[in-house]
Amino acid sequence: MTNSAAALDIIRSEVDRSLREFVERQRPRINAPEVAPLIAAAEEFLAGGKRLRPAFCYWGWRGAGGGEDPAFFTAAASLELLQASALVHDDVMDASDLRRGMPSAHRRFQRLHEKAGWHGSAEQFGESAAILLGNLMLIWSGEMWRGSGLPPASLAAAQEVHDHMRTELMCGQYLDLLEQAHGENSFDSALRVALFKSGKYSVEQPLRLGLVLAARERAPWIDRLCEEYGRCVGIAFQLRDDILGVFGDPAETGKPAGDDLREGKRTMLIARALAAASSVQAETVRATLGDPDLDVSGVERLRQIIEETGALLACEEMIKKYLEDALSSLDDAPITAEARTALAELAVAATSRRT
Amino acid sequence: MTNSAAALDIIRSEVDRSLREFVERQRPRINAPEVAPLIAAAEEFLAGGKRLRPAFCYWGWRGAGGGEDPAFFTAAASLELLQASALVHDDVMDASDLRRGMPSAHRRFQRLHEKAGWHGSAEQFGESAAILLGNLMLIWSGEMWRGSGLPPASLAAAQEVHDHMRTELMCGQYLDLLEQAHGENSFDSALRVALFKSGKYSVEQPLRLGLVLAARERAPWIDRLCEEYGRCVGIAFQLRDDILGVFGDPAETGKPAGDDLREGKRTMLIARALAAASSVQAETVRATLGDPDLDVSGVERLRQIIEETGALLACEEMIKKYLEDALSSLDDAPITAEARTALAELAVAATSRRT
Repeated sequence: MTNSAAALDIIRSEVDRSLREFVERQRPRINAPEVAPLIAAAEEFLAGGKRLRPAFCYWGWRGAGGGEDPAFFTAAASLELLQASALVHDDVMDASDLRRGMPSAHRRFQRLHEKAGWHGSAEQFGESAAILLGNLMLIWSGEMWRGSGLPPASLAAAQEVHDHMRTELMCGQYLDLLEQAHGENSFDSALRVALFKSGKYSVEQPLRLGLVLAARERAPWIDRLCEEYGRCVGIAFQLRDDILGVFGDPAETGKPAGDDLREGKRTMLIARALAAASSVQAETVRATLGDPDLDVSGVERLRQIIEETGALLACEEMIKKYLEDALSSLDDAPITAEARTALAELAVAATSRRT
Repeated sequence: MTNSAAALDIIRSEVDRSLREFVERQRPRINAPEVAPLIAAAEEFLAGGKRLRPAFCYWGWRGAGGGEDPAFFTAAASLELLQASALVHDDVMDASDLRRGMPSAHRRFQRLHEKAGWHGSAEQFGESAAILLGNLMLIWSGEMWRGSGLPPASLAAAQEVHDHMRTELMCGQYLDLLEQAHGENSFDSALRVALFKSGKYSVEQPLRLGLVLAARERAPWIDRLCEEYGRCVGIAFQLRDDILGVFGDPAETGKPAGDDLREGKRTMLIARALAAASSVQAETVRATLGDPDLDVSGVERLRQIIEETGALLACEEMIKKYLEDALSSLDDAPITAEARTALAELAVAATSRRT
């Protein structure tokens, strides 16, 4: 096991602990037993996850001289609350049935309604409850960050980055909706979505937060490193996500095979496939991409086109190239040697993952 | 014009100014022209509103010795961002078409999609964009509060109240969903919804925030005053809301006549009507309440039942009683005479309003 893999285990267990403690502290605040399903859903959502965002944040923190500090793990864990909130709302927006192999939050609440035989539309109840659950976790993420116990000078230095990240996340998701609606398939637009939707928010900003928290200032070298490493790992991370959304193993991703195809996601994979497709292939893509009832053979047909046009290979090449650039960006950064190695390993892990 | 009415004009213009300035500061952060509709929708939503929450907050602040301070108005204005966020999400959850006589946010985005002839479901796009808009304003409310420029000692003293209010709002809305789903019609459950859904969050907590910000501590007398005045004005406020939701003039409320009846809201008005209804009347209520296609004559029939059973009169009596209790709660509170008068006038205004 490498150092950074061992560290990832520690990060995971510290983040888990912080999240459990935070939710426990919320419980007495909510003076109504009927709210229990909301809290239970939050707990279940928070129990999973790769904890990559806290890991990028951690290596930023350590890289700029931060030590092992429970307060830091609390701050980093708050990123998982933000992410859980985004996933719950995402599933409502995409009308997704599953998340990590389990019913998505809105389906879970819908079933609660159905089982109890309550009045009104179970579907509407499920969506409404999931919107509120997402809001609750969004609020909690800010509260947990601010109340982490990190020194005020650290929090003050990182506040603008933190605020910016949250606004950028919502605007990035809106851009993603727009690109989907525009039905655009240019490389540029696919790259932009990859960068805004997940690149900045999953890699660049968590890393920047960690660096600024430890350095207590937003030094120019921090922005240079985050922009370059963050952009490259972030895009490669999203490209891997796109590939997993089409070719991933449902047993590992927890999502039905080819779910992104049913949702009609305009990814680099699709843009590349369309750019190299024959007119017959292009017609098939246009006719079936985004069909919510696309069956297994339809998914298989689209996969074949993506492979035959060389789109899959091209995206794998892109990931490799972005990964190389990410690794070079670490060369001159004035961070600890330990963090440099760990961030290199983390970049590899984030872009070669299978879930 | 009374002193407090004149003050309300000042509060409104200061709150408007703060909100405009805050949104202006967000603009350069969002580096994509396509996001403009999101910002425009936020601005439009923020331009309206009675500013009652900032007003309760203001008189708490002044009552405990706070002075005229632009930083205070910024903090108080952040409550309007929270409220705007809740309204946008509320309209998605209730599938409401109108808000203040204009299309609700999700309908507005739905039309944007339809007019542009984009791909995919316009309705789903509208709802998704509205969820993101609500999230953006929820995030901004926290950012604006924290960045108001009030002294750290004030903000630190009020932080727990602020955090609590936000969690309570989401849990209160979930309780409201549940009561609707349970189809309960007891007086107790109607009162509880009135208190949790709007009482605490619209009156008690804004007032407490103002008091604690100025006093820089959460003194026992503050909690006593807020619990009593806040509970009474809050419930009376919600009872007035319930009456307006059934009998309000669409030209003034900006909502179609009888909208609450179509949504099947389980209010005190309905609980009282059912408790006193003949079996024929009760059957009519059960058969038509919550019917989304309820027409004008159906609305008229339900209104008649609410009047004939004495439910309307009983609710007006309740408002009067709660208002009296609210006014007595001010008697012994150690606040300035000016604030005492203003809070009394504000209680009257909040519970006798026509919109």
